[in-house]
Amino acid sequence: MLDPADWNDFRAECHRVVDSLVDYLKTVSDRPTWQPVPQEVKDALREALPIDGMPLSNVYDRFSKLILPYPTGNISPRFFGWVHGSGTPAGALADFLASTMNSNVGGRDHGAVYVERQVIAWFCDLFGFGEAASGILLSGTSLANLVAILVARSSQLGHDVRARGLDQRTQPLVGYASAATHSCVRKAFEMAGLGSDALRVLPIDASHGIDLKLLEAAIANDRAQGNVPFIVVGNAGTVDVGAFDPLEDLAAIARKNELWFHVDGAFGAMTILSERLRHFVHGIERADSIAFDFHKWLHVPYDAACVLVRDGAMHRRTFASEGPYITRMQRGLAAGEPWFADYGPDLSRSFRALKIWFTLKHFGARRLAAAIERNCEQAQLLAKLIEASPDFELAAPVGLNIVCFRYRGAPDAQDAANDAIAIEVQLSGRAVISATTVDGRRALRACFTNQRTTDKDVRELFDAVTDAARH
Amino acid sequence: MLDPADWNDFRAECHRVVDSLVDYLKTVSDRPTWQPVPQEVKDALREALPIDGMPLSNVYDRFSKLILPYPTGNISPRFFGWVHGSGTPAGALADFLASTMNSNVGGRDHGAVYVERQVIAWFCDLFGFGEAASGILLSGTSLANLVAILVARSSQLGHDVRARGLDQRTQPLVGYASAATHSCVRKAFEMAGLGSDALRVLPIDASHGIDLKLLEAAIANDRAQGNVPFIVVGNAGTVDVGAFDPLEDLAAIARKNELWFHVDGAFGAMTILSERLRHFVHGIERADSIAFDFHKWLHVPYDAACVLVRDGAMHRRTFASEGPYITRMQRGLAAGEPWFADYGPDLSRSFRALKIWFTLKHFGARRLAAAIERNCEQAQLLAKLIEASPDFELAAPVGLNIVCFRYRGAPDAQDAANDAIAIEVQLSGRAVISATTVDGRRALRACFTNQRTTDKDVRELFDAVTDAARH
Repeated sequence: MLDPADWNDFRAECHRVVDSLVDYLKTVSDRPTWQPVPQEVKDALREALPIDGMPLSNVYDRFSKLILPYPTGNISPRFFGWVHGSGTPAGALADFLASTMNSNVGGRDHGAVYVERQVIAWFCDLFGFGEAASGILLSGTSLANLVAILVARSSQLGHDVRARGLDQRTQPLVGYASAATHSCVRKAFEMAGLGSDALRVLPIDASHGIDLKLLEAAIANDRAQGNVPFIVVGNAGTVDVGAFDPLEDLAAIARKNELWFHVDGAFGAMTILSERLRHFVHGIERADSIAFDFHKWLHVPYDAACVLVRDGAMHRRTFASEGPYITRMQRGLAAGEPWFADYGPDLSRSFRALKIWFTLKHFGARRLAAAIERNCEQAQLLAKLIEASPDFELAAPVGLNIVCFRYRGAPDAQDAANDAIAIEVQLSGRAVISATTVDGRRALRACFTNQRTTDKDVRELFDAVTDAARH
Repeated sequence: MLDPADWNDFRAECHRVVDSLVDYLKTVSDRPTWQPVPQEVKDALREALPIDGMPLSNVYDRFSKLILPYPTGNISPRFFGWVHGSGTPAGALADFLASTMNSNVGGRDHGAVYVERQVIAWFCDLFGFGEAASGILLSGTSLANLVAILVARSSQLGHDVRARGLDQRTQPLVGYASAATHSCVRKAFEMAGLGSDALRVLPIDASHGIDLKLLEAAIANDRAQGNVPFIVVGNAGTVDVGAFDPLEDLAAIARKNELWFHVDGAFGAMTILSERLRHFVHGIERADSIAFDFHKWLHVPYDAACVLVRDGAMHRRTFASEGPYITRMQRGLAAGEPWFADYGPDLSRSFRALKIWFTLKHFGARRLAAAIERNCEQAQLLAKLIEASPDFELAAPVGLNIVCFRYRGAPDAQDAANDAIAIEVQLSGRAVISATTVDGRRALRACFTNQRTTDKDVRELFDAVTDAARH
């Protein structure tokens, strides 16, 4: 009843859409990196619930006029804002296939389940997690961190925390992470009912990694006060400057203190793919859990992330639910244990594994690693341009792929000037950078997680920033 | 670097894929509803991480052989298992568009944000939520219920529960829901640290709705014991038999007792679209929050769900995070407040609004409602066939779109016989039904949330079940 009245019409429409999308992607570099949505477009989008539909071609035309010209911008080669992957045409096509199959990967026995298992197995192998490990695909590292923290909570309190909750406990659980940790870890503590006060935020040292002496002191202090340390979160690629905590040392401290060791590797964990870069994540193989995104540095279209847990049984005990309605069977569609629903919050789950599988199969690990390495070289290129410029200075050393720098002028209003430059560059359409705070002062920030960027684009970014600063 | 070396090759590949997918969807009724994945296919899918890639056409060929023939089955007109939407070709195409744009809808100022706002506004209007309401798209009702429960937790304990957590509280929070409530509500209580014991599970009455007298007694009893009642969850469409709690009465009890009133309307809330059916959700407009799926009865491809909250400020206070890295600006790409990241767990968010927008724009509410009404008629048709059959009996009244029925034979092993019939029907490829427990005994269950089903398919289902029972 909702299928096309005429399949040939639908086929023709799909071919028209393909031609238009291929042209769109092919010419992405010719358009502004970002442009604001005009008020008349916002007005045109606002309307009452459609009671009667319109032909697909009309909907597509409205989409082409009102939506397609106004992307976030991360598909452009000159997008360097926050940490956004750029996607790939192959990944978008894979999403079309996944949505056509419309599989529900909450569990059961069908093809998509085996694809997701394979994707997870690849990354368990890469990170040296053994046969007993488990994993699940999720929307983003925010949720992946939450899942890991919930498993760690179960590991500390025992399985019956699920029934009893936290309110009967007298000894508060506490965890540790550096000040450079992404705010989603704090949010996960909030959601889990632990409270953000229970996350001890430790200062960073000169390399922007966690201060290990202060960490050990904090653990001892908490124990002395009757609190229960249960987790330490290490960063593989901080969001501000792309720094790495000393993972090997964190693993040792975690083991000595019997803490769960979780690594937030949203983008930085993907350095594991590169022989030249994987020294950054040395020690990650000793983690109890790892969270990372595919939609950042592997350029899988949004959204796609993963959490891996070394102790798969503990992972399952944290989430597995039974119900008469979802009885598992020995044969038929309700077989196929274990079900993914037993490893995370969702029972209905999309087939996001397919775009990851396509990305790995089509590009291969070597080519994906080369794109990552090239981004790091481009960050060094920008750093050199900044260092040679009279207008700017680096705000932090460039260790990996993020360049934080600062306009040196306007000494009385430098913070505001730097924020203003970020905005002006965005409005110019020539590039997108963001702004952040480094060592207590505002700084400009260019993040290289973009498979389309060329060295020419880096120079264009530098010119755009220079022009914005001078005007 | 990950774009096609030759755009014309990629274009040709996309056209080939379109032709193959259109043929696949057009002929879905000719194939088995579900078939097991053969061992040799599972073996072929298992392989080491690809170091070198392969041409896209080769990846697609492997997909065509190893994955595409083994869907969950819900795209088939004879799929009646659990509660699965069937998707639409138009929705799949919209997902292709969304992945091509690859927008990150965590926030900021770009087209996708305005599409998601419009989609949410449509449903706020439908449910009579006012100007102060908020909403966010999520992966499924499981997460949507969790978000609602977290907002209710904030509303009860105050904003500082985010910092303090639950462990310092002496008075345990408790909530209420019927025994027919989906297990994800219990899971949400677990994840939020409240503990599943804090969810009081109340018996259902003859209509499979919550027993209101027992609910009021339980609230009074908890108060007497020093517990703090904070939420009651009503069902708009239970997962076992498709029953509705008396929402108007629940709203009154919630108001009288100052409880948060949340409605889990995963599929049943969509009856709001139908003039004939919307009496089922009478009272839902008095809820404090509503969770529902688009990927079930609106046939949007997986995954797509929504939570609406009447008190948008409370919703935002529960999730909003600041961080130097995500500073909001007055102009440029970092403008566009409020950001969706402030209303849920994710900071990176896919453009799932587009497939919903396409679905509403292309089909219109009237046609979507007609598909829902037709499913309810088909459930009545199957009920009549069951009632007229010597082999089966209804296990519950058919109020909406779910038919629970039971094989009358094998009196000594009836539970096992019914489970076996569900499996046999699945293995036959003729149809998919699931099994559940009704009034303490196993039953077969056919759920009509399928836009492709015809009356002929209903008769084929009945024949398949009859044949399976007799063999």
